[in-house]
Amino acid sequence: MNPLFQEELQVVNVGLPAFAEAIRMAGGTAVQVEWTPPGQGDSQVAQELAGLINHPAVEAANRQAFAAYQSAQPVLEGVATAAAVVPDMGERTILHSGPPIPWERMCGPMQGAIIGAILYEGWARDADAALAVVARGEVQFAPCHDHGAVGPMAGVISPSMPVWIVADREHGNRAYCNLNEGLGKVLRFGANGPEVIERLRWMAGVLAPALAAALERHGGLELKPLMAQALHMGDEVHNRNAAASSLLLKRLVPALLRADPAPAEIAAVVEFLAGNDHFFLNLSMAACKAMLDAAAGFSGSSMVTAMARNGVEFGIRLSGMGDAWFTAPAPVVDGLFFPGYGTADAAPDLGDSAITETAGVGGFAMAAAPAIVQFVGGTPQDAIAHTNEMTHITLGRNGALTLPAIDFVGTPAGIDARKVVDTGIAPIINTGIAHRQAGIGQIGAGITRAPLACFAQAIVALAERVES
Amino acid sequence: MNPLFQEELQVVNVGLPAFAEAIRMAGGTAVQVEWTPPGQGDSQVAQELAGLINHPAVEAANRQAFAAYQSAQPVLEGVATAAAVVPDMGERTILHSGPPIPWERMCGPMQGAIIGAILYEGWARDADAALAVVARGEVQFAPCHDHGAVGPMAGVISPSMPVWIVADREHGNRAYCNLNEGLGKVLRFGANGPEVIERLRWMAGVLAPALAAALERHGGLELKPLMAQALHMGDEVHNRNAAASSLLLKRLVPALLRADPAPAEIAAVVEFLAGNDHFFLNLSMAACKAMLDAAAGFSGSSMVTAMARNGVEFGIRLSGMGDAWFTAPAPVVDGLFFPGYGTADAAPDLGDSAITETAGVGGFAMAAAPAIVQFVGGTPQDAIAHTNEMTHITLGRNGALTLPAIDFVGTPAGIDARKVVDTGIAPIINTGIAHRQAGIGQIGAGITRAPLACFAQAIVALAERVES
Repeated sequence: MNPLFQEELQVVNVGLPAFAEAIRMAGGTAVQVEWTPPGQGDSQVAQELAGLINHPAVEAANRQAFAAYQSAQPVLEGVATAAAVVPDMGERTILHSGPPIPWERMCGPMQGAIIGAILYEGWARDADAALAVVARGEVQFAPCHDHGAVGPMAGVISPSMPVWIVADREHGNRAYCNLNEGLGKVLRFGANGPEVIERLRWMAGVLAPALAAALERHGGLELKPLMAQALHMGDEVHNRNAAASSLLLKRLVPALLRADPAPAEIAAVVEFLAGNDHFFLNLSMAACKAMLDAAAGFSGSSMVTAMARNGVEFGIRLSGMGDAWFTAPAPVVDGLFFPGYGTADAAPDLGDSAITETAGVGGFAMAAAPAIVQFVGGTPQDAIAHTNEMTHITLGRNGALTLPAIDFVGTPAGIDARKVVDTGIAPIINTGIAHRQAGIGQIGAGITRAPLACFAQAIVALAERVES
Repeated sequence: MNPLFQEELQVVNVGLPAFAEAIRMAGGTAVQVEWTPPGQGDSQVAQELAGLINHPAVEAANRQAFAAYQSAQPVLEGVATAAAVVPDMGERTILHSGPPIPWERMCGPMQGAIIGAILYEGWARDADAALAVVARGEVQFAPCHDHGAVGPMAGVISPSMPVWIVADREHGNRAYCNLNEGLGKVLRFGANGPEVIERLRWMAGVLAPALAAALERHGGLELKPLMAQALHMGDEVHNRNAAASSLLLKRLVPALLRADPAPAEIAAVVEFLAGNDHFFLNLSMAACKAMLDAAAGFSGSSMVTAMARNGVEFGIRLSGMGDAWFTAPAPVVDGLFFPGYGTADAAPDLGDSAITETAGVGGFAMAAAPAIVQFVGGTPQDAIAHTNEMTHITLGRNGALTLPAIDFVGTPAGIDARKVVDTGIAPIINTGIAHRQAGIGQIGAGITRAPLACFAQAIVALAERVES
């Protein structure tokens, strides 16, 4: 008889917990190790992954990409009209969030926002006429990311909209994002009624020139220290931007008041800024885009440089794979819904705002923002656990963005697609939830995960490029 | 033979840990229970305390006092000159922090601040002349607390200084506090040079009228919701007021811009507000004073309604003991010193700002402010432990002021002097540290404890009043 069966059994069970439970029910002891097969059991993916793990070229490229991300110095330089600054933006181009998608496949909120943008631009007089403009092919659509830009939710940027200009002063690249409209009926959630268009026109005609004048007076505004301060004030700078928006106000309003000539309607501008706790979101996104663009283009790198959703598909980019998108169906968000709404009303995950998680903030920095669980669900302990879980799939920590609640460690950053595929741990994302129909707006907020399939595809494609 | 010695010993040791350690060293097991004798072993104190514990009259009075504290609604109503609003303030009265103290016994920073106030009032041309004014007895000194007021550090308020007016709209009482000057060379740390006096005159001549105009436009500003929001943004509203100061700015600046006529030098006013992360401290103090004055005067109550220090003595007041002070030598603060300074340079604990801890914020709400440990020392875990420790000496929790990091429980509030004496757990206080000499200013910040002797005295005095 095997001596094993004469001793007391000490079982370590890897993977499916049912085996360990059976042993425990029989009175034995079993330690359960959480584990899933790499690539979720897809043998091709697992094989390609095996070739990339500890690969010297990938390791070296990742070190370079991560170092570039870390050394980036995003500075808010100004506000300008999109057509004047966003690269390769044609006269009839409308940018949208997420990976590329044709009009017919777009989700309701994105179509609604595009109709709004056409009305705002004056290319049509009403929604029907706007649809006809689209049908005649008179508008070109492209992802924000393909033009160095990002936009929350529908992410719609049309030529005459104002955008933030954020420069990475370390590497010279620039990133752009539209200006936040506030909550309620807003374009980014697909609303396009007269009050939405009127607000957009006020933002372009009054707000943007005032901000531009303030920034000219102030000079470049470094965003990383401001984000770091906000993380010490309970923000994660994706779904909670109360502190960052206040800090921005404190920086800009004195300059606004000193600007010469003083902008008209200054009180209305300050009231708009003071009344919108999400105002910093779009700047956080532009800063994250600038930091991640610095990390893009390192041949062989498996570092994720973008995660973005168009409400139908979720797409990611890798540093070593240029502008290629790796996509999978966008998930539905599990969250807290406003009264009267539920999962059935929700558009799938939407927006470029997951650029914040890609840069190590948002869901990755939830440990900084215990109060956010009142908005997205869960407990403060969950928030810390989410941050800690992300250390398993990241290349390092960003020492410039620290988390007080967990002893001031840097936030986990630089998602390594290899680690995601290897562990099966999907990046976590804090997000707003839009109604699936155009025009209704936000119906909740919650937590979601990036689909693993994107990362598996990316790893297979990267393996083809990297010599074994 | 006693059967006890035939069994394995299971020891529970209460009090001095040395006994438990000896048993463990001998191979036994011992559970250590932290305990000190009530009243630190003073049998008279312990006996008086025993008469008060579970005493129906004390319990009933404490319930009433705590309920009054909880229902208080501190509202910022305006800014006015001290002489015009602070009760019973004579033409030549100078208020100071802490319990009463004659000039000769005052600490350096307090004397320095009083000289500054005399210069500011124009009662003397220079410091020597100011000293002569004091020597001739031409100035009366009194504690802020005796006039319904509070002041941080030296806490000096002279007749023509502007003060915040905070009304408890639930009970009708009012509290006052001077305006925060910012950091560096400032009166409250004993500096009195020309730039200090000039700033005070600017604050009275420009800042205060602007704030008054903004508040008139805005209407009363409820302070408890603002403090609650700040606790969710990493402040404890004593030594960390970055969020609260920003939130105040967001409320006041739009009103300032809408005020008719808009105040002159508005940019300078906004810059001053935006440049001072401690600006809210004095409002936090006035709000806490208003909440605690509501709890004062309940016959038999052992609830602490004030803790205050004059740099020589630490004093407390009990709800059931009227305006009586119970004092002990002020402790030296253990903290983080600015480069070049240490404990030997420090004035003992100073200022009325411990009114915040008395109201359940400050050190009692440190769990809300993990980032403050970079300023006062310790770890984020210590911050949570400090808050939890204070639950042993408080009457309840303030459900309006919640702490995200510990599952949104209310902050422990309403110090029960009986529990302090019974447990030997002294209230914790976050505080700034002043140089012991006048004119040098802040040299650090840290954590200290209220002296237990104050509470023992208060309990003995209360026992005399309460019928057994």
